[in-house]
Amino acid sequence: MADKEPQQPEELPIVLVHRLPSFKIPSDPSFRDQLRSQFHMLDPHESPEPYDSFLARHAPFIRVLMTIGPSPISAEFLERLPVLELIVATSAGLNHIDLPACWRRGIVVTNASLAFAEDVADCAVGLLIDVLRRISAADRFVRGRLWPVKENYPLGFKLGGKRVGIVGLGSIGSEVAKRLSAFGCTIAYTARNKKQSVPIPFYANVRDLAANSDVLVLCCALTKETYHFVNKDVMVVLGKEGVIINVGRGSLINEKELVQCLVGGEIGGAGLDVYENEPNVPKELFGLDNVVLSPHSAPATPESFEAVLQLTVGNLKAFFSNKPLVSVVSNE
Amino acid sequence: MADKEPQQPEELPIVLVHRLPSFKIPSDPSFRDQLRSQFHMLDPHESPEPYDSFLARHAPFIRVLMTIGPSPISAEFLERLPVLELIVATSAGLNHIDLPACWRRGIVVTNASLAFAEDVADCAVGLLIDVLRRISAADRFVRGRLWPVKENYPLGFKLGGKRVGIVGLGSIGSEVAKRLSAFGCTIAYTARNKKQSVPIPFYANVRDLAANSDVLVLCCALTKETYHFVNKDVMVVLGKEGVIINVGRGSLINEKELVQCLVGGEIGGAGLDVYENEPNVPKELFGLDNVVLSPHSAPATPESFEAVLQLTVGNLKAFFSNKPLVSVVSNE
Repeated sequence: MADKEPQQPEELPIVLVHRLPSFKIPSDPSFRDQLRSQFHMLDPHESPEPYDSFLARHAPFIRVLMTIGPSPISAEFLERLPVLELIVATSAGLNHIDLPACWRRGIVVTNASLAFAEDVADCAVGLLIDVLRRISAADRFVRGRLWPVKENYPLGFKLGGKRVGIVGLGSIGSEVAKRLSAFGCTIAYTARNKKQSVPIPFYANVRDLAANSDVLVLCCALTKETYHFVNKDVMVVLGKEGVIINVGRGSLINEKELVQCLVGGEIGGAGLDVYENEPNVPKELFGLDNVVLSPHSAPATPESFEAVLQLTVGNLKAFFSNKPLVSVVSNE
Repeated sequence: MADKEPQQPEELPIVLVHRLPSFKIPSDPSFRDQLRSQFHMLDPHESPEPYDSFLARHAPFIRVLMTIGPSPISAEFLERLPVLELIVATSAGLNHIDLPACWRRGIVVTNASLAFAEDVADCAVGLLIDVLRRISAADRFVRGRLWPVKENYPLGFKLGGKRVGIVGLGSIGSEVAKRLSAFGCTIAYTARNKKQSVPIPFYANVRDLAANSDVLVLCCALTKETYHFVNKDVMVVLGKEGVIINVGRGSLINEKELVQCLVGGEIGGAGLDVYENEPNVPKELFGLDNVVLSPHSAPATPESFEAVLQLTVGNLKAFFSNKPLVSVVSNE
C-alpha cells in the first residue's frame, strides 16, 4: 500500500460505526486512524446532523456495521438498516445484539473472542490462583502492616489436582483448559453441544458439571438459556470449598444468590471480573477475603486491543473482497 | 504395619528435632503424631532438662536431625553432634544451614523442594499474572468503590509472548517453566551449571539473562554467590517494563536498590513473596500499584504440608533401612 496514493474517503467501503455516545472508538487513537485509512467510517455521533436523519440518509448504502463495546443492537434498530449484511463486533460477548433477529435477516455476525481469548484466559487463571492462594487478601494483610503482628496469613489451597469445570469451551474456554492442564488440574466442560473432536470429559449441564468439580470457570455466552443458570442449587452442589470464576457475563450467575452463598459459606470463594449491574458491585463482597474483584478488565491489555484491531480490519477487508470472514459467530 | 503391635518409643530410630523455640513442629498436629509413631523424636524444647545438658546426653546416639523451618545450623552446632550423618530439612531453601560444614563432615542433607515445588511455582505464576494484569491493585480499586467514579482501571500487560528468565532451574524453576510455556511465554534460564538434558536456552549469569528477558523469576538457592546478585545493574538491563518475581529468598535481591528501582520507575513491577528482613517489608512498597506483596506464603498449603510430611518420613525411613534417600541436596 505504501506506494499508492491514499484513497479518498468516498472511494472507500462504507462502515457504520455503532456505539453508545459514551463508548469512544478506542482508547488508542491509532485504532481509529487505521480504520479510517481503509474504510469510510460513518459515525452518527460525530455528525452535526440529528441521529435519525443521519441514519435514514445513509441507510440505503450501509451493508456493514461495526459495533463498539456493548452498544445494544435491537431488532427495531436492524429494521432501520434494510441492506445490512454484516455486523462486526469488537467484543467477545454478544448479549447486546439480538442474534435471532440477525439470523432471521440472514445478517452475518463476527465477534472478537479470538483477539481476547488469551488475555481473558490469563485473567481467569490469575483470578483462580488468587482466590485459592489468597494473593490479593495476603497483599492487603502485608500492606495493612499485619504480618509482624499476626505472624502467618491463613493457608490457601493447592491448585494442582483440582477438578476444574469449564462452562463454555469456545476460544476462551479452550485457552483456560490449556493453561490449567499445565498446573496439574483435571478438566471437564459443559457447552451447548458436545465437541466430538475434544478429548475432555463433557457434562450435559452446568449442575452435573458442578457436582463433579472443585472449580467452575464461566466463559460462555450470555443467552436466554444461560441467564442465571448458575443459581443456588448449582452452587450448593459445587460445595463449601468450591470456587467460581466468572469472566463471561455477570448475569450468568444469580448474583443475589452468589452473594448469599459466599456470605453464608455455601461455596468457598469467587473470582469475578463481571457483574450483573456494572460498574456496581454488591457491597457485601467488599469485606470478604475469599473473593477477588476485577473491574471487567479480563480482556483489557494493549496487546489484545491491537489484536481486536487486526481482527476487525481482517473481517472488514475479507467482507469487501469476498473472502472468508475471520471470526463468524455460529448460528446453532 | 496394621497387624503389628505398636513399637515402644525406645525401640524406634532416634531423630533429633532441631528448631527455634518459636517454630512449632507443624500447624497440623497429625504431622507430629505420624512422626512419633515411627521415630523416637527427641525435642530439647519439650524436655524440662536444660538444652545443653539434654543435647550432650543424647548426642552420642544422634545420627539424624530433622530441622523445622529456617532454624539455623552452624558449624559450631554440628560439632556438638559427633555421629551425625543426615540432616532432613523441612524447607526448600537451606540458607540457614552451613552446607560447606556439612560437606566437610560428610553429612548428607535432604530438603523439601520437591514437596513445595508445585505450590511455589503456582504462587510465582499467580504473582506474575497479578503484577502484569494488576489484579490485586484492581481489586483494591473495586473495593475502594472507585469503579463507578473513575470508569476504567488502567490497562495491564499481556502475559503471552513475554520472555521469562528463570533464575535457578531446580524442581521449582522447572515447574514454573512448564506452567508459563502454556501461556505462550518464551523461557530461558540461568543456573550454576547448564543442564545438558534441558532444551531451554541457558545464560551464564543473571545479568545476561536479564538483558534478554521481560520477566525474571527468582527461584534459586541463597548462597554466598547469589547474595544480592540481583542488583541495580541487573534491574536496569531488565528495563523499565521489566518485572521481577521473587519466590526464592529476600537477599537474592539488593532490596534497597529494588525499592529505588521500583519507586524511580527503573523497572516495571515486582511480585515478592520473600524479603530481606521478614516479616518487615520496606514501607515504600505499600503505596505502589505495580507491586504485589505476599507474606512468604508461596509454599504454604495444607497439601504441600502433607507432601512435606510424606517426603520427610520417606527420607527418614529410607535412611534407617539403608535405602536411597528421596531428596538429597547435591554438593556442587
